[in-house]
Amino acid sequence: MQFTAHEISLLLNGTVEGDPNTSISKLAKIEEATAEALSFLANPKYEQYLYHTKASIVIVNKNLTVTEPVTCTLIRVDDAYGAFSVLLEKYNTLKLNKTGIEQPSYLHPSAIMGQNAYLGAFAYIGAEVKLGENCKIYPNCYVGDNVTLGDNVTLFAGVKIYADCVIGNNVTIHAGAVIGSDGFGFAPTSNGTYNKISQIGNVIIEDNVEIGANTTIDRATMGSTVIRQGVKLDNLIQIAHNAEIGANTVIAAQSGISGSTKIGENVIMGGQVGVVGHISIARGSQIQAQTGINRSIEEEGKKWGGVLVQPYQGFLRSQLIVHQLPEFKKRIEELEKIIAELRNKQEVIH
Amino acid sequence: MQFTAHEISLLLNGTVEGDPNTSISKLAKIEEATAEALSFLANPKYEQYLYHTKASIVIVNKNLTVTEPVTCTLIRVDDAYGAFSVLLEKYNTLKLNKTGIEQPSYLHPSAIMGQNAYLGAFAYIGAEVKLGENCKIYPNCYVGDNVTLGDNVTLFAGVKIYADCVIGNNVTIHAGAVIGSDGFGFAPTSNGTYNKISQIGNVIIEDNVEIGANTTIDRATMGSTVIRQGVKLDNLIQIAHNAEIGANTVIAAQSGISGSTKIGENVIMGGQVGVVGHISIARGSQIQAQTGINRSIEEEGKKWGGVLVQPYQGFLRSQLIVHQLPEFKKRIEELEKIIAELRNKQEVIH
Amino acid sequence: MQFTAHEISLLLNGTVEGDPNTSISKLAKIEEATAEALSFLANPKYEQYLYHTKASIVIVNKNLTVTEPVTCTLIRVDDAYGAFSVLLEKYNTLKLNKTGIEQPSYLHPSAIMGQNAYLGAFAYIGAEVKLGENCKIYPNCYVGDNVTLGDNVTLFAGVKIYADCVIGNNVTIHAGAVIGSDGFGFAPTSNGTYNKISQIGNVIIEDNVEIGANTTIDRATMGSTVIRQGVKLDNLIQIAHNAEIGANTVIAAQSGISGSTKIGENVIMGGQVGVVGHISIARGSQIQAQTGINRSIEEEGKKWGGVLVQPYQGFLRSQLIVHQLPEFKKRIEELEKIIAELRNKQEVIH
Repeated sequence: MQFTAHEISLLLNGTVEGDPNTSISKLAKIEEATAEALSFLANPKYEQYLYHTKASIVIVNKNLTVTEPVTCTLIRVDDAYGAFSVLLEKYNTLKLNKTGIEQPSYLHPSAIMGQNAYLGAFAYIGAEVKLGENCKIYPNCYVGDNVTLGDNVTLFAGVKIYADCVIGNNVTIHAGAVIGSDGFGFAPTSNGTYNKISQIGNVIIEDNVEIGANTTIDRATMGSTVIRQGVKLDNLIQIAHNAEIGANTVIAAQSGISGSTKIGENVIMGGQVGVVGHISIARGSQIQAQTGINRSIEEEGKKWGGVLVQPYQGFLRSQLIVHQLPEFKKRIEELEKIIAELRNKQEVIH
Repeated sequence: MQFTAHEISLLLNGTVEGDPNTSISKLAKIEEATAEALSFLANPKYEQYLYHTKASIVIVNKNLTVTEPVTCTLIRVDDAYGAFSVLLEKYNTLKLNKTGIEQPSYLHPSAIMGQNAYLGAFAYIGAEVKLGENCKIYPNCYVGDNVTLGDNVTLFAGVKIYADCVIGNNVTIHAGAVIGSDGFGFAPTSNGTYNKISQIGNVIIEDNVEIGANTTIDRATMGSTVIRQGVKLDNLIQIAHNAEIGANTVIAAQSGISGSTKIGENVIMGGQVGVVGHISIARGSQIQAQTGINRSIEEEGKKWGGVLVQPYQGFLRSQLIVHQLPEFKKRIEELEKIIAELRNKQEVIH
Repeated sequence: MQFTAHEISLLLNGTVEGDPNTSISKLAKIEEATAEALSFLANPKYEQYLYHTKASIVIVNKNLTVTEPVTCTLIRVDDAYGAFSVLLEKYNTLKLNKTGIEQPSYLHPSAIMGQNAYLGAFAYIGAEVKLGENCKIYPNCYVGDNVTLGDNVTLFAGVKIYADCVIGNNVTIHAGAVIGSDGFGFAPTSNGTYNKISQIGNVIIEDNVEIGANTTIDRATMGSTVIRQGVKLDNLIQIAHNAEIGANTVIAAQSGISGSTKIGENVIMGGQVGVVGHISIARGSQIQAQTGINRSIEEEGKKWGGVLVQPYQGFLRSQLIVHQLPEFKKRIEELEKIIAELRNKQEVIH
């Protein structure tokens, strides 16, 4: 893809300063840009980059005062950062705008596909599946029987969706994610073995959700595991059966939510957090990375955390002492007693 | 699938109360049920649901006394919960009972498949592979050369099994799991780089094992990584080379077992636990979620744990103070010395 | 594969003691070996195994004195362990030396493949992809448009590489790993929802890197997420957008590196470590498993850690007391004050 400064200025409602025929083929940070790249300068702190960049075109704020000679073409706009974001999005939309059906792919005769779809080679669409419009199913995806996808859903390569799951509109699922695997439910028997508890529920993913690579979301035992609208899940996250993630909650990589737990709306959770089952986390909670949550959080909008880092030697020393804390407590109490006695005696003396 | 109250009562050895021709097409919890659903009531605490449910049929205990009018058809049985579990299992068996070979799939001429198999489209069965009876290989699975699968093995979509691994009977592996990837073995060299140690062993999975989505089990350097019978592994678990997981041990999501470690039988391990290499964990141990195990556990049947959670402000304060613990210890000892001196002096006074 | 003692001795520059026509078909540890196996004895501590092993051939050190009768054929070499490692590698090279193009596979007409390639069934090679020589692409892999692979690259089954990523020479990526998924970048809006920040960068993996099963490496927002030469990543690791992992750094399973963080060269990181974003870790740092790193580490070559394990009852007790640490501090300070007063008084007395 190749664009001129003139074309871009029309798109952004900006004005060109320099050669309007300057053309670019890629986007880059101003300090890393090479020839044929378009970049932007929003923060005046980085003005010096403007005079040394190799970018062919730089988008700048309308009111920027240029104090040294520039060799690149400028496009002046109201908000350089916002304008560049618009271009990033356009660029990605163009790049990811695949359509058509590659062969061989597997489309069950009873499945229904909406208009303008992309179905990659080796993608599998099972019986009674319904896909909305503009769905993009990359190669090696598996969509089990009776799954429903809304409009504008993208499944990147190798996503697997088990039977009966329901996916809303504008949902993006990254490569290798698994939706609807069996919940982890086993009943112990008297001889120490376990019987599987059949998992006949499903997963419901509402609109505007994004799910990261190799994340796993288990189906409910009965009923549904639910990911509410606007949720953003990072990579390698585990969501167990019958959990519910509230609207617009954001969870970083490698966190795990146990069965039947309800996370409220607009929660922000760091990476590698673990949450036990059958509890609820109040809306707006902010959980620090690596925290273990073993009870419900009822107050809304609070911060929670619990991890240490320190030099290994010091850590070993502190670790030993943490083990001695109960003993410490006794020693302090002993001291308090002794001092109290001393005081009494002294008061007697005086 | 559609069934009448009469048909279900025959299956469960129960008696119908109401219209024996009432038909249902799905299973649901009594409080979430809609028309055409079958549900159950086992716990008398929830009796009120019976009078308001929209379920068409409800399974109840023989001895339940109905105290208000019911609109649904009842089926009375000895044990309502047990009867419902039977139905759940039947339902799942029917639903997952795929057979036949979808095209295109890849079956090496030297591979042997047992009777009644399902081979999904884009599934790959390598040279010299042996599959037992009733195996269900979902789309996009990869079964490498010389792998053996027992009877009644289900590989859900996108499971990958490297060459030479051995899988027993009645094993279920969920989507995206990887069995037999190389162990993580590298020998440091004098210039700071690493040489790979070839990993020529395999993975052996015994009977009645279930393995979760996107879990990874590495092959042994030499010999075998072994998952004993009846083990249940959740999603996103890492089992390193030459580890052995004892019979009927259950491990929750995102836990990791390092190389050559032996976990005993009937261990229960929470999620996100980490276990170092070359140790052993005694049978019947119960490990709390997120615990780090850095030494062998020899006593059988004990509980172990080690995680904190607290409000973030308090956490930060405690964290600072934990770092000061070695200093605290000194201060307490100092106090004890001073008090001892004071006491001596006072004794001199008296 | 079948080899005689004579053939192996030529390969290892060793001398045969026993029947040079003894043949073997597999490699095994001396204590686990069965007939037709080749094994080795390097550590004199295990000499007794030599007299009871079922191996057909055992490689031993030149200077080993045999003190009891042996039934197997010996091959004497300068360094038994080193010689066996050479055989392990040969064995694996032979076994993994697949070539040819299996059908059906998908090779875009504009893609270029080097000599001696293996392309497994259901593998997908997108537009403008360039593969070097001796590349082995196992079944169900996905290589997106415009990806470049160097020479001697192995992608095991089901690896997914998004568009525009660049992979060097001698790189091995294990099954299910995802390279180039979108970075986790979302901008909050005033109504609590999030706007996606387009992720248009890529991932660069340099030479001699090995990446574990189901590991995920996100593409950069702009620019590149970079894995430097010689890096070894275990399974289920998360590398976030714009991170950089220094040359010859080794990271164990289930660790996570957040966005824009730079890990130095020759760092060794245990499993389940979490590192926050936008920091740097000095070269040669050694991080204990499960540690949380929330600030830059500037000193080179130090050890860091931070996890506890103890019996659950004791843990609960200590946990309660850790919460009381701020109170403890006050009590100790109070004690110090009182004792100071007592001392003053006593000095007055004397």
